[in-house]
Amino acid sequence: MDSVASRVLAVLGAFGADHRNLSLTQLSRRTGLPLATTHRLVGELAAWGALERDAQGRYRIGLRLWEVGSLAPRGLGLREMALPFLEDLYEATHENVQLAVLDGADVVYVERFAGRSSVGVRTRVGGRWPAHSTGVGLVLLAYAAAGTQERYLAGPLARFTDRTITDPDRLRRELAQVRRCGYAVSDGQVTLDALSVAAPVHGTADDVVAALSIVVRAGSVAPAALAPAVRTAARGISRALRAQPQSFRSMEGP
Amino acid sequence: MDSVASRVLAVLGAFGADHRNLSLTQLSRRTGLPLATTHRLVGELAAWGALERDAQGRYRIGLRLWEVGSLAPRGLGLREMALPFLEDLYEATHENVQLAVLDGADVVYVERFAGRSSVGVRTRVGGRWPAHSTGVGLVLLAYAAAGTQERYLAGPLARFTDRTITDPDRLRRELAQVRRCGYAVSDGQVTLDALSVAAPVHGTADDVVAALSIVVRAGSVAPAALAPAVRTAARGISRALRAQPQSFRSMEGP
Repeated sequence: MDSVASRVLAVLGAFGADHRNLSLTQLSRRTGLPLATTHRLVGELAAWGALERDAQGRYRIGLRLWEVGSLAPRGLGLREMALPFLEDLYEATHENVQLAVLDGADVVYVERFAGRSSVGVRTRVGGRWPAHSTGVGLVLLAYAAAGTQERYLAGPLARFTDRTITDPDRLRRELAQVRRCGYAVSDGQVTLDALSVAAPVHGTADDVVAALSIVVRAGSVAPAALAPAVRTAARGISRALRAQPQSFRSMEGP
Repeated sequence: MDSVASRVLAVLGAFGADHRNLSLTQLSRRTGLPLATTHRLVGELAAWGALERDAQGRYRIGLRLWEVGSLAPRGLGLREMALPFLEDLYEATHENVQLAVLDGADVVYVERFAGRSSVGVRTRVGGRWPAHSTGVGLVLLAYAAAGTQERYLAGPLARFTDRTITDPDRLRRELAQVRRCGYAVSDGQVTLDALSVAAPVHGTADDVVAALSIVVRAGSVAPAALAPAVRTAARGISRALRAQPQSFRSMEGP
């Protein structure tokens, strides 16, 4: 990490959901770069609009970087195609609706609508969560390439509640079950009060590029009753992606 | 533009709504950087996740840059606070609903819901449009600092239709009118078939940080009939921003 490009990326990567506003000193400490270097880089980034200053003189991610980031096909691009179907599912249910992709061992949430009278969920757009605990994650793992799945099963499986699946063999059986049913259920595996039903979104090569879920209060509805609505909306998104072929292939390497 | 940071930013800035997938050669040409330099920078950006490769080997903006960009308070941060109120306005009307901020001479769209049976609109999230032609832009100019307003009025005012206001004196009167009424109307000024009604969103310091609009087919409804719903939703967002004081001050410098 000693090229200048890597220093620029280190400055950008220093920001996070819990570190949205950082002083020059904090940036220097979090990146491990000398204060003078940090000062110069931050000046260039702010001049371009990648960073902005808040009223206290601290730095935060700027609108221009958000604009450039919004061009990511797996971020806002996917979300724009999916939005009408998410709206339909939300209007039909008024429950939490979420769209996510797999990145490494995490699901990354690309869109969510929060049902105001539904159960509270911990996700935010742009946020990450370990895949094995969530409905969308179970779908994305179930349809991932064999290598990706094996790497995941070999790693530690964090426990969030008593119901989180932390045994690799049980997770493997669960993923096989998801492929058989065409949808996943995560019941109390993230928080005990929430149940999620998720379905795959297919890309142009029929690979699974995203997953859609609905999250309701555990015990309020039978998962099998939610699956048709979620699968219908997910199929709608898949069809929209196929109609616009260029960008939505899976990121999995050969 | 000869620091390495500026080269990194030039590579990121080479991407746009009409240039979402770029080959190495195209990136080199668009940035004016030698091919070898471009190759090295692109390799570092891809390793970090700021860029990804598509099936044809071209580069595109990566998920990780979208994640970092999503931390921008004026982008996704604002949008997250505003979303429930946008949902309400959309459900109540099923018309196009848009949220935008001012950046330089442009409005930047932070969120939009497209009403499927409503009039077609040309905007996209993360997209820009000259401020004087749109409802949200008229609101943002009307409440901008005097210096910002004067700079805008001194510049060329692009014409999109016969109804676009291109005369600075007329625009100045229009902005005064917006401040008196508390909302703006753009009737056929972007496309002849669309009418927009927009209202200001206030930040913690009572400055205007964003504008909310509804866009309907021109002639289908009287603007005065739409204004209460738009103003109500905009006031809801302002209240939510005041309740979460830290991030949402205007970007206008002193």
